[in-house]
Amino acid sequence: MRRTFAVLVENHPGVLARVAGLFSRRGYNIESLAVSRTDDPTISRMTIVAEGDEAVLEQVAKQLRKLVDVIKVQDVTAEEHVARELGLIKVNADAAARGEIMQIVEIFRAHIVDIGRRTLIIEITGDEEKIDAFEEAMRPFGLREVVRTGKIAMLRGSKTTSVTVKEDE
Amino acid sequence: MRRTFAVLVENHPGVLARVAGLFSRRGYNIESLAVSRTDDPTISRMTIVAEGDEAVLEQVAKQLRKLVDVIKVQDVTAEEHVARELGLIKVNADAAARGEIMQIVEIFRAHIVDIGRRTLIIEITGDEEKIDAFEEAMRPFGLREVVRTGKIAMLRGSKTTSVTVKEDE
Repeated sequence: MRRTFAVLVENHPGVLARVAGLFSRRGYNIESLAVSRTDDPTISRMTIVAEGDEAVLEQVAKQLRKLVDVIKVQDVTAEEHVARELGLIKVNADAAARGEIMQIVEIFRAHIVDIGRRTLIIEITGDEEKIDAFEEAMRPFGLREVVRTGKIAMLRGSKTTSVTVKEDE
Repeated sequence: MRRTFAVLVENHPGVLARVAGLFSRRGYNIESLAVSRTDDPTISRMTIVAEGDEAVLEQVAKQLRKLVDVIKVQDVTAEEHVARELGLIKVNADAAARGEIMQIVEIFRAHIVDIGRRTLIIEITGDEEKIDAFEEAMRPFGLREVVRTGKIAMLRGSKTTSVTVKEDE
């Protein structure tokens, strides 16, 4: 089963290595991870997508909560949430192919962000499936390079993963 | 100085912990990190933003290249590149504030992706400065939650960070 965790951490060196180590020691591969600061620069937020046995991932989540500098761990998988990812895709595009590519870009509401002599860079935002589908639509033209941010997730409505007072205080 | 590294790695458990450990052992905090698969599911790509002494970050990059499962490390900071980040921002929005928020959303070409009774979730894509500016524009309404993917980067034109044949082969 595939799970998505929203994790709030103190923005200190070492916390990322500890979190990543917890997964890898159990042989679990993190499928995607996005880490960046929140509106409070002392706190970072990670969105972790991992696939594995449900009971074991449950254990991993419990152990995450005990790590130094980890403030909050929330499994958002079963909750109503918004999930988004950003991708940059560089595709071969000579003059002949460009028109057809631009049509597909429009259908996906993507954006061309760089035009080279023989290549285009396209920016696309959406859920994972949408970016997968766009990648497949571009593949026949020749994918040169694909970079994706990994998913970020936020609970719908007014519920938050944020903390105003840390839970251990 | 702030540096952006594009790192290609084998999609194996442990590689993320090794990379993160390399930074943290030197007391370097990773400012943002985005890891996701590429068009080749056996290969993942990390975009790492780190701030620190230039000579030391140079050393870190060299040692990254020697890690097991690391295929390629490229410092894109000084190269012509496209950099993008995605943010989700949940903001307080009662009926009275909604119109004003929608105007700002339009100016930033952002999108409302969830409407709750008292909150909105807004999706925004751009460089770091644009997302920072949008966050500041939303702050007076009351930020409930901010999640950002961290930056991803791609060289302009036809140059790539991708490898068709691994460099060590």
